Amino acid sequence: MPTNQLLIRIFPGIKWLHGYTAQDAVADLIAGVTVGLTVLPQGLAYATLAGLEPQYGLYSAFVGGIVYALLGSCRQVTIGPTALLALMTSRHTGFGLNSGPDYAILLCLISGLVEFAMAVLKLGALVDLISLPVTVGFTSATAVIIGTSQLKGLLGLRGGSGSDFLNTMKSVFGNLHNVRRGDLTLGLVSISVLLLLRKLKDIKLATRIRSVRLQQLLSGSIWVIATGRNALVVLVSSGLAYSTCDRTDSCPYILTGKVKSGLPSLALPKFDTVILGRNDTKVSQNYEQMLSELGPSMFILPIIAVLGNVAISKAFGGAGLSPTRELLALSMSNICGSFCSSMPVTGSFSRSAVNHVSGVRTPIGGFYTSALVLLALGLLAPYFQYIPKAALSAVIISAVIFMIEFEVIRPLWRCSRRELLPGAITFVMSLGVGVEIGLLLGVGADVAFLVYRAARPVLSVSKLHTINGISYILVRPKHSSLYFPAIEWVRTGISKALSTHGTAPVVLDCAHVHDFDFTAARGMGSLHKELAKMNVPLFLMSAHKDISVLLKESTSINFPTIECPDDLECILEQTIALAC
Amino acid sequence: MPTNQLLIRIFPGIKWLHGYTAQDAVADLIAGVTVGLTVLPQGLAYATLAGLEPQYGLYSAFVGGIVYALLGSCRQVTIGPTALLALMTSRHTGFGLNSGPDYAILLCLISGLVEFAMAVLKLGALVDLISLPVTVGFTSATAVIIGTSQLKGLLGLRGGSGSDFLNTMKSVFGNLHNVRRGDLTLGLVSISVLLLLRKLKDIKLATRIRSVRLQQLLSGSIWVIATGRNALVVLVSSGLAYSTCDRTDSCPYILTGKVKSGLPSLALPKFDTVILGRNDTKVSQNYEQMLSELGPSMFILPIIAVLGNVAISKAFGGAGLSPTRELLALSMSNICGSFCSSMPVTGSFSRSAVNHVSGVRTPIGGFYTSALVLLALGLLAPYFQYIPKAALSAVIISAVIFMIEFEVIRPLWRCSRRELLPGAITFVMSLGVGVEIGLLLGVGADVAFLVYRAARPVLSVSKLHTINGISYILVRPKHSSLYFPAIEWVRTGISKALSTHGTAPVVLDCAHVHDFDFTAARGMGSLHKELAKMNVPLFLMSAHKDISVLLKESTSINFPTIECPDDLECILEQTIALAC
Repeated sequence: MPTNQLLIRIFPGIKWLHGYTAQDAVADLIAGVTVGLTVLPQGLAYATLAGLEPQYGLYSAFVGGIVYALLGSCRQVTIGPTALLALMTSRHTGFGLNSGPDYAILLCLISGLVEFAMAVLKLGALVDLISLPVTVGFTSATAVIIGTSQLKGLLGLRGGSGSDFLNTMKSVFGNLHNVRRGDLTLGLVSISVLLLLRKLKDIKLATRIRSVRLQQLLSGSIWVIATGRNALVVLVSSGLAYSTCDRTDSCPYILTGKVKSGLPSLALPKFDTVILGRNDTKVSQNYEQMLSELGPSMFILPIIAVLGNVAISKAFGGAGLSPTRELLALSMSNICGSFCSSMPVTGSFSRSAVNHVSGVRTPIGGFYTSALVLLALGLLAPYFQYIPKAALSAVIISAVIFMIEFEVIRPLWRCSRRELLPGAITFVMSLGVGVEIGLLLGVGADVAFLVYRAARPVLSVSKLHTINGISYILVRPKHSSLYFPAIEWVRTGISKALSTHGTAPVVLDCAHVHDFDFTAARGMGSLHKELAKMNVPLFLMSAHKDISVLLKESTSINFPTIECPDDLECILEQTIALAC
Repeated sequence: MPTNQLLIRIFPGIKWLHGYTAQDAVADLIAGVTVGLTVLPQGLAYATLAGLEPQYGLYSAFVGGIVYALLGSCRQVTIGPTALLALMTSRHTGFGLNSGPDYAILLCLISGLVEFAMAVLKLGALVDLISLPVTVGFTSATAVIIGTSQLKGLLGLRGGSGSDFLNTMKSVFGNLHNVRRGDLTLGLVSISVLLLLRKLKDIKLATRIRSVRLQQLLSGSIWVIATGRNALVVLVSSGLAYSTCDRTDSCPYILTGKVKSGLPSLALPKFDTVILGRNDTKVSQNYEQMLSELGPSMFILPIIAVLGNVAISKAFGGAGLSPTRELLALSMSNICGSFCSSMPVTGSFSRSAVNHVSGVRTPIGGFYTSALVLLALGLLAPYFQYIPKAALSAVIISAVIFMIEFEVIRPLWRCSRRELLPGAITFVMSLGVGVEIGLLLGVGADVAFLVYRAARPVLSVSKLHTINGISYILVRPKHSSLYFPAIEWVRTGISKALSTHGTAPVVLDCAHVHDFDFTAARGMGSLHKELAKMNVPLFLMSAHKDISVLLKESTSINFPTIECPDDLECILEQTIALAC
């Protein structure tokens, strides 16, 4: 028994096998295969987006399913290649296809290790720092970048597209005269079909059909077609290309080209590589040079991966999931993946949704997805070469246009306009400079606002009188703490209050202030001395005991504290009496 | 009259001339000359510390006095070269003396421009971000670095010292067999004399001396000697070197070497320069390369300069000074200075203190200091070459050892231990990696804490009962706002509370929460839905109207709000009645 429990502790997936019925198996099989039909075309497309040969997309698509089935706890999550991570990976594969996979696979391993470290150090909470406006700005910008990066494929222009929005646009507009009619037509038709099929799901069947059986069959097949639309479009367009291109030399479409058949070799990621430098000379890169090339991506990519994963498991699993567990499953998917030549992977929102609506019951569904991908690698790979690039581009474009979110702008504009700024910064800088920089600047803007709020607490200043007519100046900082960046502000505020309202005892109301720090305490000390020079006594009102102790320890001044303004009266009268 | 007022608006210094009496002039003259006698040896020493020829220290010492007299408003402040800025400048003069001044002068101009921008954009408040523990860690580390960088001069080792603490220590310990007895003796004697003379000020004269006149004379001369101790030690040691070295070839001391006589030529800073590359080849650097070499120093050095200046004007001038005014005066000192071959300058705490105790009455005292420096450049420069380097090192060392502050550790340890961390990070990283990095990491640690506080508000959770015995869970976040980083934390907290205390209506007490943001509002919406699934109603208590509006706008949910727990009773009874 203890062995059993230990096993479940290590591989929580085993618990799914308890009472796993044939019905469960069938449900998982159907869902797994449906997801597989989605991931096959997406994997090929995302690998191309990442600047890799198409088979790497499939290498990335099977490890996650197996690992997550063993370690994960949310049945809907499917881990594999995503457009976002492919885009972020593409930055480092721009050296030519020779070196491409080496960087992508190393990045996959490092992402896994960083995610593991985040799980151990409980740093998963770092994604809390990414606010909703920044998330929206980021995903919208990546959608735009990914969409434009597919324009070349759609227009039949040769040459890969980078992750650089501005350069891609320039290159596309500079080559408009080279647009190939065949690719463009196929691409536009594919997009239209994909969008129509997507819409198909929402269509309510006319209730005229009497036979319940027929109705079920019809709605069932509509559902299958709508869900498998990516596979369908790729299949049809490949058939078209196969029939036209295999016989004649002049093919109207640019094709994917040879996809290596068979499973990836199980191997350690390479820690050195050879890239093509200027003038096509080969430059060898050692471990350090590879790491320095990957640079900040080594940390930003895992954080984005975690953000995606958290969003999915939150959407489908509720608050009951252990974030650390999920993080661990994600990290192991990447680490194990990197031994099978995978590029960085994370949870895919669209495929998880497919999984959900396909009625998946346990994470074991991922096994079936993986099996299908492996089968495709073994048997279907020779046929993948006939997939027109325009069709893959269409698959990507019709997936990412729904990532652009305008809906949040209106409520933001109406009730919290300042939050548009971090979102806009993220969006514009992601497009103009790069998604990593954009994200960092957006988070930076949000953090700057948090610091600003702590540094410039609202001070309500008023001149009041006690019952017996002794006037005093009440200063109430509306922030839960007085820390180093705020104390000068408070000092200046009190100075100003004294020059506006005339000299009177100052009462600092600490009812809302739970905490001081050393710098603030010392600042209070200087303020006390400064006011003492002007014969202005300074009182703390409703100050927590901890605050009084801190002030005493740091300044050696015993700040007089009162509980309510009327206490002031008696103390002040005593002081005045003493002075007389 | 309006012309006059306009002039005063532009040059507030002019107002000092109103009713400027002969007495004022004499007081300012005495103070100015005293400060001049301090800045002469310090200037020569700090220029060497910055990796420049000694005369540049004097070039840096006269512009600030004149500009501040015209633009400044705190009589004690004296602007000129400081050990800290010299150290930070030295990073960029390590290319050999040929290029040294070009980088330092360009850095001076850029610092002035950045300070000007800070004044215009009111960014002077950025120094509020530097907490006391970080300031102490930073100044202590720079004191240690400056002190060790002077060890070579003190020990008579040839070769300049960089700003790199670890390399300096290695180089010193590797060359201990080359220590020259003459320099070491002179250096140690100089330090002892300087420290003794410094102590002299504090000595109370025995009251045995009857004659008041004699007593005044005695205490007066003691004060002069103690204040002018730097000049005195340099003068005596130079005399010693002159008498020994001028006749024989074997000089027991390493001397400063030729100091260029005369005023600096009035010229634009150079925007290109030639540095010595590897193998002593000359490498020309254009503007861009120079800027990229200066890198983050262009922003960190001005901030440090402002920090120093703010500290001084706060210490001597109180809260009445306009920080923008002061910033403007500092920026113009640097901009004008850069046309006279100055390195970056700021207010010197030690010389401002000398100015204060010398009885300065107006900033016009700075004029006299500048005049003395110019006089020295014209007449005394040929004699400066006899100043032994060991004496200058002694001047620096005995100035900076008082910058190392241990006193704050005790109160910090006793009442706010966590604040030791940013201080320690700053100190250790400044020594190990560099002062700029150390400062940034220290500020980063402080900011991270501010964000942490906003992200993880203390939640007080309790299960309570209304008068009629209806139980509810009261959740009270102890922070003045609920922003994006905190909302997940609050959601998890409420989930946990429900599983601990059992299902009951949840009341979120917003009495201390003044502000929500969009992300938090959306999170509340998700929470509301999640709780609704479990049939748990969610109430807001004492929520400000703004918060209710924001929640409504962002989530389209009408959160029920109550004013006190007893309101709950009636609402809940209604709900239960409706449900029944």
